[in-house]
Amino acid sequence: MQFWFAPTRHVKAKIRFPEVSVVNALTSLAMSEDLLQRVRDLEAEVQRLKAQLGEKDMPANEMEGTTTSSLIEKVNHPDTTGGTKKGKKKGQERPFDFSTHPRRHVALRLAYLGWSYQGFAVQENTDNTVEARLFEAFLKTKLIQDRQSSNYHRCGRTDKGVSAFSQVISIDLRSNQFCGGFGVTLPANVGAGAKIKEDAVEVLYVKMLNRVLPQDIRILDWAPVAAEFSARFDCRSRTYRYYFPCGALNVSLMSEAAKRYEGTHDFRNICKMDVGNGVLQFQRTILSATIQPVCPHSVSSTGSHDLYVFEVKGLAFLYHQVRCMMAILLLIGQKLETPDIIDQLMDVDNNPRKPQYSMAVDFPLVLYDCHFEGLSWLHEAEEVSHTLGTLQHHWTQSAVKTQVLYGMVQGLGHAGGVPSTHCWLMEGTRQKNYKPLLERPCCESLESRIEHFVKRGRLEREEGENGGELVHRGKRSKLSHNSPHMSVVKEVSSNGDTNDKQD
Amino acid sequence: MQFWFAPTRHVKAKIRFPEVSVVNALTSLAMSEDLLQRVRDLEAEVQRLKAQLGEKDMPANEMEGTTTSSLIEKVNHPDTTGGTKKGKKKGQERPFDFSTHPRRHVALRLAYLGWSYQGFAVQENTDNTVEARLFEAFLKTKLIQDRQSSNYHRCGRTDKGVSAFSQVISIDLRSNQFCGGFGVTLPANVGAGAKIKEDAVEVLYVKMLNRVLPQDIRILDWAPVAAEFSARFDCRSRTYRYYFPCGALNVSLMSEAAKRYEGTHDFRNICKMDVGNGVLQFQRTILSATIQPVCPHSVSSTGSHDLYVFEVKGLAFLYHQVRCMMAILLLIGQKLETPDIIDQLMDVDNNPRKPQYSMAVDFPLVLYDCHFEGLSWLHEAEEVSHTLGTLQHHWTQSAVKTQVLYGMVQGLGHAGGVPSTHCWLMEGTRQKNYKPLLERPCCESLESRIEHFVKRGRLEREEGENGGELVHRGKRSKLSHNSPHMSVVKEVSSNGDTNDKQD
Repeated sequence: MQFWFAPTRHVKAKIRFPEVSVVNALTSLAMSEDLLQRVRDLEAEVQRLKAQLGEKDMPANEMEGTTTSSLIEKVNHPDTTGGTKKGKKKGQERPFDFSTHPRRHVALRLAYLGWSYQGFAVQENTDNTVEARLFEAFLKTKLIQDRQSSNYHRCGRTDKGVSAFSQVISIDLRSNQFCGGFGVTLPANVGAGAKIKEDAVEVLYVKMLNRVLPQDIRILDWAPVAAEFSARFDCRSRTYRYYFPCGALNVSLMSEAAKRYEGTHDFRNICKMDVGNGVLQFQRTILSATIQPVCPHSVSSTGSHDLYVFEVKGLAFLYHQVRCMMAILLLIGQKLETPDIIDQLMDVDNNPRKPQYSMAVDFPLVLYDCHFEGLSWLHEAEEVSHTLGTLQHHWTQSAVKTQVLYGMVQGLGHAGGVPSTHCWLMEGTRQKNYKPLLERPCCESLESRIEHFVKRGRLEREEGENGGELVHRGKRSKLSHNSPHMSVVKEVSSNGDTNDKQD
Repeated sequence: MQFWFAPTRHVKAKIRFPEVSVVNALTSLAMSEDLLQRVRDLEAEVQRLKAQLGEKDMPANEMEGTTTSSLIEKVNHPDTTGGTKKGKKKGQERPFDFSTHPRRHVALRLAYLGWSYQGFAVQENTDNTVEARLFEAFLKTKLIQDRQSSNYHRCGRTDKGVSAFSQVISIDLRSNQFCGGFGVTLPANVGAGAKIKEDAVEVLYVKMLNRVLPQDIRILDWAPVAAEFSARFDCRSRTYRYYFPCGALNVSLMSEAAKRYEGTHDFRNICKMDVGNGVLQFQRTILSATIQPVCPHSVSSTGSHDLYVFEVKGLAFLYHQVRCMMAILLLIGQKLETPDIIDQLMDVDNNPRKPQYSMAVDFPLVLYDCHFEGLSWLHEAEEVSHTLGTLQHHWTQSAVKTQVLYGMVQGLGHAGGVPSTHCWLMEGTRQKNYKPLLERPCCESLESRIEHFVKRGRLEREEGENGGELVHRGKRSKLSHNSPHMSVVKEVSSNGDTNDKQD
């Protein structure tokens, strides 16, 4: 994002510490009106520019197409990319004949830093998503013909600013296994002109894709899978990590409280309810929820700068569930709530409506692992080391800059500065007087939300077998999930939500 | 955030009922956060679209301009900023009459993160410098009339990407001490209409300036100084810090080698010679040069991720001297050179010409301290704590992101990745086969450089008293150092270079 602000120095200055500017800006409520005006002006500007570009009529990835593809050309390795050799000579590009190639249903595991993306999943109003970069790479390397026909499933969604260490997707990719193999579909007209190579090494998917992907999106490895495998529906469990510094938090209290999340509970008060997208069931099973220091052996000069990680493993998660769980833990760590609040929020009989509260910020969250059974991951050893090098380089910069800041923090401490005890990981602004969660205004109840969407035809009521009432997803969201637009509408809340198995 | 990116029909709805949004925004502060995020996202979108439209070369965007300044207005405290009240009413702004106000010669100590600036000193070819932001703040707060008349000196220069924790400048600022005081000059026509306040508290320089400066430039404190005080010429010594992770480096070898820099040596082979700007003498005195772990008590799980700091204190430094010193130490730490190379490079009789080598990268370098005698720094306590809070906030983000990266580095290690032993802190590209420094091609000698600039009239030869030859700075750089351009030409090499006292 920062990149886009380059042209104006003030904006740059502002953007350099966005959250800080937010704090300043929110010191005055009157700002909100200015902000709304600003939003309207900008929206108008966006419309104007889009009109000039006639962009709405353009296919999604033509926007950055020019720059991206030119970049891609540079890093491309013809030896590994059957298709892209032709790609280099613009103009005389012959259409690539996918019908003469085998397809292989595979699982791909990828890591990405989500900080400068608008989220993982393709969205209608921005091109800046991990999935957009991913499909540009698939198309560029001629591994797929188009998204619609690619039999694509993702394991979990991650939101704007959220990273992943092992996100998993399943997709059909071009293969060179003309003699067949696990998950391979041979072309109808095989042999017709196609040279059949015995025991050929499969296309180097990892190397090929990493050559054309941005540095902050890396394919780690791949696995051949059965035709019916879905990264989304066959995922057994998911592990998220949320990193945070101790600061003034009582970590042992948080650690004890975290345990209360374990087991099967109704999390409607600890997520963002997304009824409009057919999420009507909020029971989720948490297999483990722990808080640990990130390096157990390390004893830093001041405990307040030690880092900890909240690690939560569950079968499936609701929209914003982990960041809401973390928000509650941060309130407990600040002694603003007692661990007991967790049980009270999960007791939906006595607390059927979610109290209004801000969730924890996005950038410390990582979808760290997705668990599948019986997959044999194949890495291309040299690629793993190459990716490791890239991460080491990025870590070096980040670690050194962190130390530069720490040196200044220490210096100001010695100069008599009083360290703030504020928790920087909560969204929204600091309240002068804390209002206990259970005394706050509540959000709409699940029932009234359902009512709302039934009225709008987004949900449909039906008579259940034994007279009970069933609520189904409305027609409008029954379209194929392969259409990028509808996939947003349908999966916006899923995070691999088990409900989605219904359709 | 996803809320804002919901399919456009939602956005339309929002535009259609802005007043509703106003109400929401005012009732929920978290909403304001969303609004600001929305603004940022829209600004990004606008930039993206403009980039597509090739609007880059438009006059720096009106839109961003307005918001940012309005944001600044908002955080401005009228009670502390005489000037900016008027600033709010554009158009009808009356000229501020500086002649009716006392001036005070003061020293200001400031900290800044140099990573997104082109350097400290104003440059002709970019507006993105710390000094440019600083003078904007002085002018906006009506503390000075213009740079030319402000009697401005800086203690040290820092280059592109280099930060400072206590950079010091001296300057004449508007004062409210109508009864005089240390360093105060009263207006000629004092009393003429001016209300004389007995023992008034001095203008809150720190608070006033920090309100209008970008968040990554903070004034720490100020000191009243005698009229003849110069931040540049009265600085006794300077301390630089260079942070680095252990990686595959032999740190104890580096630490032993660093000691060899201590004392008075000729550093012409360990800096960027800047003869064209009149730097003809390369002897510099290093008071101390040490390498220490940044947190002595910390024992991280793997030593290779421990951080160290090279701290060097000297009377004055040459252009790029510290980064060249660090580059040599990094070569020694990699066992590519022996500690003895330092003595050889400082032995200019036997090695009169600098071998070609890349210096260490910029971002880990911090001008950590500038030492003066007899200054009594005055901080505005609440401001120090406010700045500390800002830094803690930024540290939190940086530390957490570093940990996200570290988690991935560890994960890939377990996945069988082979960690790279490359040193990421050297500029330029990695050489396959290392070529020892003393076997490399050399740069021009000092003598031939002098010859070159004498020919160009940038330097002048004169007969010294006892027949010896003296070389003086040429006319072209004898211009007032108050002219931003010339100050670059003249001081580009100085880092508070004592030579510059010549003129």
